[in-house]
Amino acid sequence: MRLSRYFLPVLKENPAEAQIVSHRLMLRAGMIKQQAAGIYSWLPLGFKVLKRIEQIVHEEQIRAGHIPLLMPTLQSADLWRESGRYDAYGPEMLRFKDRHDREMLYGPTNEEMITDIFRAHVSSYKELPLTLYHVQWKFRDEVRPRFGVMRGREFYMKDGYSFDLTKEDALHAYNRHMVSYLRTYERMGLTAIPMRADSGPIGGDNTHEFLVLAQTGESEVFYDAKVPELKLGDREVDYDDRAAVAAICEEFTTLYARTDETHDEAVFNQIPEERRCVGRGIEVGQIFYFGTKYSEAMGATVSTPDGTRVPVEMGSHGIGVSRLLGALIEANHDDKGIIWPEGVTPFHCGIVNLKQGDAATDLACEGLYKALVAKGLEPLYDDREERAGAKFATMDLIGLPWRITVGPRGLANGVVELTSRRTGESEELSAEIAVARITEIYAGK
Amino acid sequence: MRLSRYFLPVLKENPAEAQIVSHRLMLRAGMIKQQAAGIYSWLPLGFKVLKRIEQIVHEEQIRAGHIPLLMPTLQSADLWRESGRYDAYGPEMLRFKDRHDREMLYGPTNEEMITDIFRAHVSSYKELPLTLYHVQWKFRDEVRPRFGVMRGREFYMKDGYSFDLTKEDALHAYNRHMVSYLRTYERMGLTAIPMRADSGPIGGDNTHEFLVLAQTGESEVFYDAKVPELKLGDREVDYDDRAAVAAICEEFTTLYARTDETHDEAVFNQIPEERRCVGRGIEVGQIFYFGTKYSEAMGATVSTPDGTRVPVEMGSHGIGVSRLLGALIEANHDDKGIIWPEGVTPFHCGIVNLKQGDAATDLACEGLYKALVAKGLEPLYDDREERAGAKFATMDLIGLPWRITVGPRGLANGVVELTSRRTGESEELSAEIAVARITEIYAGK
Repeated sequence: MRLSRYFLPVLKENPAEAQIVSHRLMLRAGMIKQQAAGIYSWLPLGFKVLKRIEQIVHEEQIRAGHIPLLMPTLQSADLWRESGRYDAYGPEMLRFKDRHDREMLYGPTNEEMITDIFRAHVSSYKELPLTLYHVQWKFRDEVRPRFGVMRGREFYMKDGYSFDLTKEDALHAYNRHMVSYLRTYERMGLTAIPMRADSGPIGGDNTHEFLVLAQTGESEVFYDAKVPELKLGDREVDYDDRAAVAAICEEFTTLYARTDETHDEAVFNQIPEERRCVGRGIEVGQIFYFGTKYSEAMGATVSTPDGTRVPVEMGSHGIGVSRLLGALIEANHDDKGIIWPEGVTPFHCGIVNLKQGDAATDLACEGLYKALVAKGLEPLYDDREERAGAKFATMDLIGLPWRITVGPRGLANGVVELTSRRTGESEELSAEIAVARITEIYAGK
Repeated sequence: MRLSRYFLPVLKENPAEAQIVSHRLMLRAGMIKQQAAGIYSWLPLGFKVLKRIEQIVHEEQIRAGHIPLLMPTLQSADLWRESGRYDAYGPEMLRFKDRHDREMLYGPTNEEMITDIFRAHVSSYKELPLTLYHVQWKFRDEVRPRFGVMRGREFYMKDGYSFDLTKEDALHAYNRHMVSYLRTYERMGLTAIPMRADSGPIGGDNTHEFLVLAQTGESEVFYDAKVPELKLGDREVDYDDRAAVAAICEEFTTLYARTDETHDEAVFNQIPEERRCVGRGIEVGQIFYFGTKYSEAMGATVSTPDGTRVPVEMGSHGIGVSRLLGALIEANHDDKGIIWPEGVTPFHCGIVNLKQGDAATDLACEGLYKALVAKGLEPLYDDREERAGAKFATMDLIGLPWRITVGPRGLANGVVELTSRRTGESEELSAEIAVARITEIYAGK
């Protein structure tokens, strides 16, 4: 993309309404625009990151054997009366009537609807296991929406629902989700720690939240210093191998890591003192096993091998897709702006032309641009008539992990400059080697 | 995908509520499930086609130089008061109040919001031309939703908005949209004819609708028999070349083609009688140039080269993404089921194992499956313990363009059977050649 043809409305001033750094930087980098309290437009740069995150979520869910579909944003109130949640849910649920006076709502979550789909089409244990998920806009009418996309009212969420015959099978689905989530967050460059959580209004016994450590997190967290060091890495996972999947879950949940809701001071104090960490975290996902709460209420039963019928065992598992943008920025920024991890960056690298209009420099930039595109990469080429300082400031603000700077002086020596946004370190090399380096960095990402 | 692990709830019976073939086949093929009047869940097969269509729409918009973003589904009533449409819009607009009693609506379209984004960030002619678009869920509270996704209430739409300094520039944007739409529909295997249309409630002078010919279409259409023969083909288009783009538009709009709204019997009768066609059509897109209607009302102005300020020239351009699934099926089916064009098929081919459980046949199917996946293709492998007849019926119903049938008899002769869904013709060939053939068919699609 050539910046002269893009729509990147960066702000020079710090917006007064933004209380936390991710909100401030998303506004300044031209990623979002508020349209109403807690409701945002995703401007082109923000939309690109949102799509990268969604794509990683899809890839890892499909890898785990989960099946995508898409449920609508609006739901009928009658469906929620079946589970009893229509009356139980508070004013966070946006309710209204359509032109025929039928009671409707904007879905805050989809347990009822997915159970309705299941009971309409599945009747035998032979069709299990089954996990269906979607990534869709939700609405929760927060009383005080704030922190930008971190606590918006209209938000984008992946929510998946597992259906199994037995509790044992359902716990394997739970474990599968835990592992697929660990991989999802790692691919985005995030350390998200699974922590035992309260089950809250959805109900259920087994539940973990995934928290990203950040000073601005809404939850207080207590954990063993060894926990953030755990990595899934690039190990192969066979999601059908129950023991292997369970072993990974054990590896990631045995050491102490809890939110303030489930914190147990006595257990915490058994950790060696130098490893006891207290911090704050941002919740970016949650997995639940809740058994037959919805299937019993809504009559979602399956036949068993011995011919009886039982309510299906369920779990629901969510990732806050739009919220992840905020969490990513909270965890990856400095005083100049955002620092995108390579897995989610909107453009793979920036190209800064130091002397726009100079024939040789323009030609070199064009050549570099085309060479990167030919490698399947998406560069952002700053081809505006602007001072070098302004171009660098924009690149730093929007946070592309790599920048290639091209100017007449370097070209005279046959070199361009490759700069890491994270370390600030620069290196002079030929354009060909710069392209090869960038290609290598993104291989497999 | 292995069918034994997929969620494909096909129906044996014709659903009573479906009045038209696309609605019936989408229900029978397990593509959609109705959740409320005119509100559908997109089951896995339907979701896959929806995403293929959305992907083609994105690719062709980006090729034309248009920039994707994403606006929210909910909007503030105040924004619509600025344009005067809040009161003008009828009961099709879904209106409600949030918990703080603020008036909101579910967006039926986005002219007001995009104008709001524009005026907040663009102030100079130097930042033009600019076309921003999104693909997002919309809601129109139809009094009688029907025909499945063809006239749903919650529907998925691509809507793009062009901003230009002069009318001449705006008409180039209009032409760019026409050409990009022609290419979009052609890639899906559709013949969509641009027809002069009434401007309706959005207002404006220049507007064309794109209609797919189908007996179930809601509009009566009158056209020269030569029009459906026009093809864009694989010609290269330089979207910056105004004359070239205008020439294509002229080629596609000079011959007579109109809906009943703009039909002119006298002009129609000038066509040689044997070329006068009367039929029905399904609207799948519309482009508008409407000038300064919204920019004047909402104060979206830009500076000009001579230092004055003028309201920006605008157009809006839409493609009915979810509706296209219905239109595609109306135009591509037979009495056995759907016949997907290769550009939008949910899976590239089916594999039917005639003797599941037979070691050699299972092995051959697995080998075929992996060979196709290695080529970047997505096969659907029917690995269920089912009669051959049932497997064929499912494949025919869901409409994959190609089927490879594998059985012990063929394998004894070193062959599998490759069958075209459209022609019904079969050919025996080795598994390797079958893979090569399928790969070739999808090269570049």
